[in-house]
Amino acid sequence: MGAVYGGVEGGGTHSKAVLVSAEGHILAETDGPCTNHWLVGVDNCINGINDMVQRAKIKAGLDPDTPVCSLGMSLSGGEQKAAIQKLIDDMRERYPKLSQSYFITTDAIGAMATASDYGGIVVISGTGSNCKLVNPDGTQVGCGGWGHMMGDEGSAYWISHLAIKMVFDARDNLVTSPHDITYVKKAMEEYFQVSDLMGMLPHLYRNFQKSHFAGFCRKLAEGGDAGDALCQHVFTEAGRALGRHIVAVLPKVHQDLFSGELGLPVLCVGSVWRSWELMKSGFTQVLSEAQARGYSHFQKYSLLTLRQSSALGGAKMGAQNAGASLPLDYSANVNMFFSHTFNQ
Amino acid sequence: MGAVYGGVEGGGTHSKAVLVSAEGHILAETDGPCTNHWLVGVDNCINGINDMVQRAKIKAGLDPDTPVCSLGMSLSGGEQKAAIQKLIDDMRERYPKLSQSYFITTDAIGAMATASDYGGIVVISGTGSNCKLVNPDGTQVGCGGWGHMMGDEGSAYWISHLAIKMVFDARDNLVTSPHDITYVKKAMEEYFQVSDLMGMLPHLYRNFQKSHFAGFCRKLAEGGDAGDALCQHVFTEAGRALGRHIVAVLPKVHQDLFSGELGLPVLCVGSVWRSWELMKSGFTQVLSEAQARGYSHFQKYSLLTLRQSSALGGAKMGAQNAGASLPLDYSANVNMFFSHTFNQ
Repeated sequence: MGAVYGGVEGGGTHSKAVLVSAEGHILAETDGPCTNHWLVGVDNCINGINDMVQRAKIKAGLDPDTPVCSLGMSLSGGEQKAAIQKLIDDMRERYPKLSQSYFITTDAIGAMATASDYGGIVVISGTGSNCKLVNPDGTQVGCGGWGHMMGDEGSAYWISHLAIKMVFDARDNLVTSPHDITYVKKAMEEYFQVSDLMGMLPHLYRNFQKSHFAGFCRKLAEGGDAGDALCQHVFTEAGRALGRHIVAVLPKVHQDLFSGELGLPVLCVGSVWRSWELMKSGFTQVLSEAQARGYSHFQKYSLLTLRQSSALGGAKMGAQNAGASLPLDYSANVNMFFSHTFNQ
Repeated sequence: MGAVYGGVEGGGTHSKAVLVSAEGHILAETDGPCTNHWLVGVDNCINGINDMVQRAKIKAGLDPDTPVCSLGMSLSGGEQKAAIQKLIDDMRERYPKLSQSYFITTDAIGAMATASDYGGIVVISGTGSNCKLVNPDGTQVGCGGWGHMMGDEGSAYWISHLAIKMVFDARDNLVTSPHDITYVKKAMEEYFQVSDLMGMLPHLYRNFQKSHFAGFCRKLAEGGDAGDALCQHVFTEAGRALGRHIVAVLPKVHQDLFSGELGLPVLCVGSVWRSWELMKSGFTQVLSEAQARGYSHFQKYSLLTLRQSSALGGAKMGAQNAGASLPLDYSANVNMFFSHTFNQ
């Protein structure tokens, strides 16, 4: 058996693991639950990762007692140095048969490594949200990614919260909703199995689960697709919020990133982007306004989506960190789903 | 020994207990920590209450094994029927010597019962915030009080969060702060003992304590008093937010409440009101705008503050619920600190 490299994509709701051969071929893939250590704690995080990778070894016909050469993890919540060092130390101690070496990066950087080695802007909107600019020289500039208590603008959590807050504010006569709340209120009562706003309190406090709360966003997407104006409104606002993340890093974008065939490449990661049509007007408006305020290099942008899990980019970076180079066919890993050229 | 009635004021940071004689005289007062069951759980809540009341019995020279006639509790978080019934059932079972009967109301209603038996508007801004209109006929209309995940606008938590969010957004270039963030950033690093924004994450998630987070508001009040523009800005916004709570219930205010000598009486409860001078411009502006939009009855309002703990109102309501009537001298329980008559 040749060398095998592991990769993990850790999200706020779902996770994935992948095993890759030295030639860059995928040997096995497995799924698991949330592995954001801020949300589930360190123990659940590393148990979940070990479980996915060990199952992948078996699925690939490998001996689970033989460590992979490296394990590269692209984790939501994988930013703080001290915290990721603790994750690695705990994994090494508790699961010595898992991997020979470990590497942790953020979900944003893992996604970018899956799509390109030239850089671009990654905008994640799944359970939470985050934005990262990676310049061609490897330098990074971030915006957001602070979690639901201090950001997550444009994420599924944020969209769910915005819609539900409008129901609360309408009940309180505190803010007048821009559209009828009937659909959102009914969908909320069904999804959370409550009969009034009081019933929402356990979902917000004692039994709060970010992933479940954020899951309500799917019902809002269905409402938006079916024509409900308030659902469409919250997604338009999400589009604006995600657009503002890009505008925030725009001043730091290296000139070369504007000049490729695609214009500025924006890699869009996470389930909320499936509702692109609902977000489009808000998103494009914010970018056009920023461009009009004067970025002469910024003539075009393209939105890309991954065709592979960012576990693959994680595997690549983990291998690189262990001194190996995994060949990835980037063009096979991405799809362009939207492109816009500004009027001169 | 005559009949003794107990009262409790339960806040998001501090709590108080009081024992009152049948003549309405205060026999003893004690302090304790947060007893909001949403924040500390049912066990800590009822242990804390029992501890305060038992200490008050001893302080008053009473036998701690003799139950008081009634215990009326004015609790932040004391709104949801099923939850308060569980609190009462647990207290009765676990502490049979505490009291003969139990009554729980919200912090807002307990405060109102301390100040008046005619009604008015209560606006609480302590750790959290809440607003309640009590009409002369006893009917109630609420606004807010949903906790930090779904409201708390204008509270110490909210003010702290708003200021800290501005530091995050400035770092991210996501939103330009209206004023220099230097003081707020430094005060945040000192109060939370962190050296960068990453260090704030445990305070927001794993080790989140609402009361500690909200306590940062005191540092912002100090900054505002010393002339820092961003601190002053967040308090002006808090004034606006609290004003909007009053405007939200204005359409439901009974005409008689406008026509007393004080105009519309607004009872202001909680530590944030100590920074009234910092909030005044935002608050008065929102009320003047609402009045100008057309409330012909609304010619004057007065802001009142309690000179006694709302544990006293809790005791009164608990006694009432047990068939006794405690005479309270309302005029001695309140102070007017601001009054405004609109231009005709």
